[in-house]
Amino acid sequence: MTQNGKQKIRLGMVGGGQDAFIGYVHRIAARLDGEYELVAGALSSRPEIAKSSAMELGIAPERAYTDFKEMARVEAKRDDGIEVVAIVTPNHVHFGPVKAFLEAGIHVICDKPLTAQLEEAIALTQIKPKNDAKFLLTDNYTAYPLMRQARDMVKSAKLGKIRIVQVEYPQDWLTEDVQNKQADWRMDPAKSGAGGCIGDIGTHAYNLVRFVTGLQTEAISAELTSFVPGRQLDDNVHIMMRFEGGARGMLWASQVAPGNENGLQLRIYGEKASLSWRQDNPNQMWFCPFGEPQQLLTRGGAGFGGEGVSARIPGGHPEGFLEAFATLYADFAQVIRGENEGALLPSLADGVEGMKFINAAVQSSKDDGKWTKF
Amino acid sequence: MTQNGKQKIRLGMVGGGQDAFIGYVHRIAARLDGEYELVAGALSSRPEIAKSSAMELGIAPERAYTDFKEMARVEAKRDDGIEVVAIVTPNHVHFGPVKAFLEAGIHVICDKPLTAQLEEAIALTQIKPKNDAKFLLTDNYTAYPLMRQARDMVKSAKLGKIRIVQVEYPQDWLTEDVQNKQADWRMDPAKSGAGGCIGDIGTHAYNLVRFVTGLQTEAISAELTSFVPGRQLDDNVHIMMRFEGGARGMLWASQVAPGNENGLQLRIYGEKASLSWRQDNPNQMWFCPFGEPQQLLTRGGAGFGGEGVSARIPGGHPEGFLEAFATLYADFAQVIRGENEGALLPSLADGVEGMKFINAAVQSSKDDGKWTKF
Amino acid sequence: MTQNGKQKIRLGMVGGGQDAFIGYVHRIAARLDGEYELVAGALSSRPEIAKSSAMELGIAPERAYTDFKEMARVEAKRDDGIEVVAIVTPNHVHFGPVKAFLEAGIHVICDKPLTAQLEEAIALTQIKPKNDAKFLLTDNYTAYPLMRQARDMVKSAKLGKIRIVQVEYPQDWLTEDVQNKQADWRMDPAKSGAGGCIGDIGTHAYNLVRFVTGLQTEAISAELTSFVPGRQLDDNVHIMMRFEGGARGMLWASQVAPGNENGLQLRIYGEKASLSWRQDNPNQMWFCPFGEPQQLLTRGGAGFGGEGVSARIPGGHPEGFLEAFATLYADFAQVIRGENEGALLPSLADGVEGMKFINAAVQSSKDDGKWTKF
Amino acid sequence: MTQNGKQKIRLGMVGGGQDAFIGYVHRIAARLDGEYELVAGALSSRPEIAKSSAMELGIAPERAYTDFKEMARVEAKRDDGIEVVAIVTPNHVHFGPVKAFLEAGIHVICDKPLTAQLEEAIALTQIKPKNDAKFLLTDNYTAYPLMRQARDMVKSAKLGKIRIVQVEYPQDWLTEDVQNKQADWRMDPAKSGAGGCIGDIGTHAYNLVRFVTGLQTEAISAELTSFVPGRQLDDNVHIMMRFEGGARGMLWASQVAPGNENGLQLRIYGEKASLSWRQDNPNQMWFCPFGEPQQLLTRGGAGFGGEGVSARIPGGHPEGFLEAFATLYADFAQVIRGENEGALLPSLADGVEGMKFINAAVQSSKDDGKWTKF
Repeated sequence: MTQNGKQKIRLGMVGGGQDAFIGYVHRIAARLDGEYELVAGALSSRPEIAKSSAMELGIAPERAYTDFKEMARVEAKRDDGIEVVAIVTPNHVHFGPVKAFLEAGIHVICDKPLTAQLEEAIALTQIKPKNDAKFLLTDNYTAYPLMRQARDMVKSAKLGKIRIVQVEYPQDWLTEDVQNKQADWRMDPAKSGAGGCIGDIGTHAYNLVRFVTGLQTEAISAELTSFVPGRQLDDNVHIMMRFEGGARGMLWASQVAPGNENGLQLRIYGEKASLSWRQDNPNQMWFCPFGEPQQLLTRGGAGFGGEGVSARIPGGHPEGFLEAFATLYADFAQVIRGENEGALLPSLADGVEGMKFINAAVQSSKDDGKWTKF
Repeated sequence: MTQNGKQKIRLGMVGGGQDAFIGYVHRIAARLDGEYELVAGALSSRPEIAKSSAMELGIAPERAYTDFKEMARVEAKRDDGIEVVAIVTPNHVHFGPVKAFLEAGIHVICDKPLTAQLEEAIALTQIKPKNDAKFLLTDNYTAYPLMRQARDMVKSAKLGKIRIVQVEYPQDWLTEDVQNKQADWRMDPAKSGAGGCIGDIGTHAYNLVRFVTGLQTEAISAELTSFVPGRQLDDNVHIMMRFEGGARGMLWASQVAPGNENGLQLRIYGEKASLSWRQDNPNQMWFCPFGEPQQLLTRGGAGFGGEGVSARIPGGHPEGFLEAFATLYADFAQVIRGENEGALLPSLADGVEGMKFINAAVQSSKDDGKWTKF
Repeated sequence: MTQNGKQKIRLGMVGGGQDAFIGYVHRIAARLDGEYELVAGALSSRPEIAKSSAMELGIAPERAYTDFKEMARVEAKRDDGIEVVAIVTPNHVHFGPVKAFLEAGIHVICDKPLTAQLEEAIALTQIKPKNDAKFLLTDNYTAYPLMRQARDMVKSAKLGKIRIVQVEYPQDWLTEDVQNKQADWRMDPAKSGAGGCIGDIGTHAYNLVRFVTGLQTEAISAELTSFVPGRQLDDNVHIMMRFEGGARGMLWASQVAPGNENGLQLRIYGEKASLSWRQDNPNQMWFCPFGEPQQLLTRGGAGFGGEGVSARIPGGHPEGFLEAFATLYADFAQVIRGENEGALLPSLADGVEGMKFINAAVQSSKDDGKWTKF
Repeated sequence: MTQNGKQKIRLGMVGGGQDAFIGYVHRIAARLDGEYELVAGALSSRPEIAKSSAMELGIAPERAYTDFKEMARVEAKRDDGIEVVAIVTPNHVHFGPVKAFLEAGIHVICDKPLTAQLEEAIALTQIKPKNDAKFLLTDNYTAYPLMRQARDMVKSAKLGKIRIVQVEYPQDWLTEDVQNKQADWRMDPAKSGAGGCIGDIGTHAYNLVRFVTGLQTEAISAELTSFVPGRQLDDNVHIMMRFEGGARGMLWASQVAPGNENGLQLRIYGEKASLSWRQDNPNQMWFCPFGEPQQLLTRGGAGFGGEGVSARIPGGHPEGFLEAFATLYADFAQVIRGENEGALLPSLADGVEGMKFINAAVQSSKDDGKWTKF
């Protein structure tokens, strides 16, 4: 802290120009707790868009880049250069920027999934970040307060040994054959990788299971389907899961399920109790101890708390998606400032696990649902 | 109708003595609409119980049997003999009575699953009922008004071509190792057959899918688990389903899922719309046309109706499990009286399909989840 | 119990001919638990309807009456005459039959409200029933298992001293100007009495408050409104309530509230905890102890029980409106058989209290909302 | 927009030092959309707190004031002085700062209720803001997207003429006698004014009714109660409302209702349809056209839109309390920049109406519930 008090962390962004969705989300997340200031960007590879997007965001013209490599090089040299960069490009343009900025000694926040190809993900784990630059993967659903509490409750044996995990993530926006910016790259194998729905949202569901339960996957049996004619990648995912230690699970992800906007739901059943949570009403979680009345836990209510669990505002004043996203940014600010180890934050290793999951699901489905290890 | 007006149908019962659960349910179902009168029974194979149970129910002493074969023989000869019998014994004591009464020319109402062994089920389809005696299987969940409406909506293409079916039936009463009359026979292979949870409630879920969607199953991939130490049969069921025509599905049934009393839930997604319904709040059903607001349909509310769909009381006055059960009895009364074909009523063929499903699930699970036809 | 076992109670009915709603409900309620047999009726004052309705119900022609007085006289003399009669006529035809049958020594089950005029209600409390004939008012919502449990929880101080009562009963079926059998008499002062919505459903809400909380009303302040042009009686009721001991409450009843089929809801707040219940999902009740997580109690689930509390089937198998109604009949059968005092059953005194409530509400509303005692 | 692109609006704050709740909320709201930069503050009247709070927020030491009058004077003269100030002090310290800053030509954002006394509120409407400085009252619940859509739907006659309004705002945090910073001033007449619960949350409920329905209040009948011994102000509010044109309503606000964290709920019934919304699940709203199935509208879903209605992220990604609060700030930024008239923003006139409502409620309650105009 200087004489003027706390200084904001200087942030850059790759991707996220006009009309981009996830870049906009990252910027709100960065602003919400007042920890970051956006000062540079390669917001688009098209110069005009890059420039006008930067103008709108108050970025100085000389720091509006069109090439992320140049941006990494130049910013690394400036005294007031960015300390951290957010990578919000489509999947196939994650590897390059992540590598470039980490090697330039600039911390990296990267959207999920980690890369388009498993090989790229593994390669990222083998580079040497300059100056011990840190990495954050925005598996944002893990940052909902009640998901952190769920993890804490599982760890502290409130559920007993886990037996069954039911996770699902239905959406409906690809029910018909749509053509737009968001849909196009997601259903293009060259940009998304081998997985469609499995990579876009299946990984979120899988990652959330790992985060909350801590279970190690032994093998999966998958059935991936493309329902909409002409679609090259899966739009519906059915997976059975075997976990080490004997637990069993099911994962359903779909983008062709009418009536579901963003229906991520996690249910965990142990020997002693269960937990159930829906993302679209994230301030409530059911806790059901066997033989006792069901309890509705709330963010901010009785019993709220646990490792890494906090709320900005009291119970009954709903927090949502943006607040959870911002929590990743706020926690990572602490990591950057050296105030926190970031134990709860999604890492490169988590990103690699996600890529292995996608690959195994695709492979199992090709092998007629054969149980597949990874 | 005689001069005195409508006469009640004379009903007998096999099983259902004191402390039996499902026999009690059948009796309420038989009484509710005033169509039946219970006049004979082999309520227990233990003479004392058979006699005192009959007394409590107002059955004349000479019609309180201990042997179902004798009951079939004697009642078939009486002028005022029973016209129909309800079989409410454990699974392994279904085959004998069903055969005896049908061959005696007495209509049969039988609890599900049809038998303990597939071979018995097939054998039942090959006997010749005397006097064209009719048969009803009490797959009761199909008789909820909104499940009949769902079937009608699927048939009339309100959902478009079906793509995805998600059905689940979690309970929690076997979470721990319990010893009681209800639990004991269900987890004894000699009495239940090869399936535990899959036979007890998995068949309900599967049958409901068939009833509502009309889809034919192509193959299933199953993972059956026994979580409670010492248990001989499965207490958790994970199944992936392939239907003819390309639809895909998941079925989860469990008796070790804390927080679930009787959580049967059916969700169906088509090209144009979806339906969603929960048995524990059966007077509501979601209908979600793609691109329009979700609609909450109610029993008795706007749009209520369809083939075989009716309600006893207006919307907002909840009907429940017993009313749905009673609808099977009321409709079967019409079949007996020759006023109705009973097209919506579960048949012997449905019972055989249920037994094939159990067998295929057990086999697939033994074969490491191999996709299994039946 | 005779040699043949338990005998059914012989039941008659006044009103309830073809197309009647509440008579049909009473008959199902009488049949459900096997305690009654309908053997006589004055189902309509129109001879043809009375006769054909009786035929359909299996009543012998000579016991199909058109005049309730004749029915009372004749049945009282028969050896196999009715033991109890159900009065299911419109409000203004309650007084006569109740008086006639009680004075003939026949038990009476009467639909609510007790009468059309307070004076009639009071007069009924002053007659001398022959042979100590019993009386039951079918304030049916009090017989839901969880409402009896709520009463028990209040009595046993689970909520602490009651502070606030919020009760509401919105419906929507009179939103527009409808003309049918059900609507016509309800909105005709000559048949309903001085109250429309307040008498038809407001009394249900008020009666439920009294039953569950045991609070004595000190005064009410009412605003009754008729929204639909030409309607002679109120179709919307707003009432503030002061209870002895300091508790305060609000009652809203409406028949012009779109989206509400039968939305009776009761919420009670005490110094230590609260209860909340909705009739249209009656198998669940919230219990919220201050400073602890909210608990969802279920009919048949953990903690289920209390004075007069019972369920026919396990939790998760929903019971509904008809089962609650049938519980009144079943309990009254015990009273008739001398096996039970009927302490939880709605009495003549409850009926009088309901009539006083209607009168006070109408008066307060005329007096510009003046707080009115009764 | 300068060469560097969009400039942030310079913001100051009065109140909101360490441990303050609402100041923290205002700061997040100001940051979320990137429109404001906090550069000055009189965060506390205690110099040490004022200074350290400013340090934490990155405010330069020379702009950390302890006296709001000095702050107004100094900042008005600086070239880089604040353009707008947020007043987040307790009610009795609203009047002074609002007056000082408006007269200094600095825009004002003020927390609700407008003042502690009606006279102060009226006086504020009579001052002359220098340079046409603008004013915003943070009646934040009106800024939820679905509440703006509700207003739009009412205006465009989707409900027909409004008949009934049921609004409630129960909380439970004052169920027992608590002593803390938040509770103390709210229950102190010298700081809060004549109303406790009525002023703290009753005004929110009343304001929301006015915003959504546009109805003018004709008179109210109120019953204010203090349940917790020793409490000087009301902790429970029961109000009946008469609106011009014949509509009727009920308002319940309570801070002693266990199980309610922040249960603001609004239900509106018209001749043709109804709307229903709960603040604690703010991304959903029921729309119930009479005679049609109920529809569940969602923020971002089918039919979403209307005057001033927008969302930051797609449906299914929940937005909450902070986003709604931030919308007031974002819209006011447009007013400040001259890009918007601010027609939907709460004004001084709305603040005065709120104060009149509090006064009328207190007066009616003293007059035994007499219907009171204002």
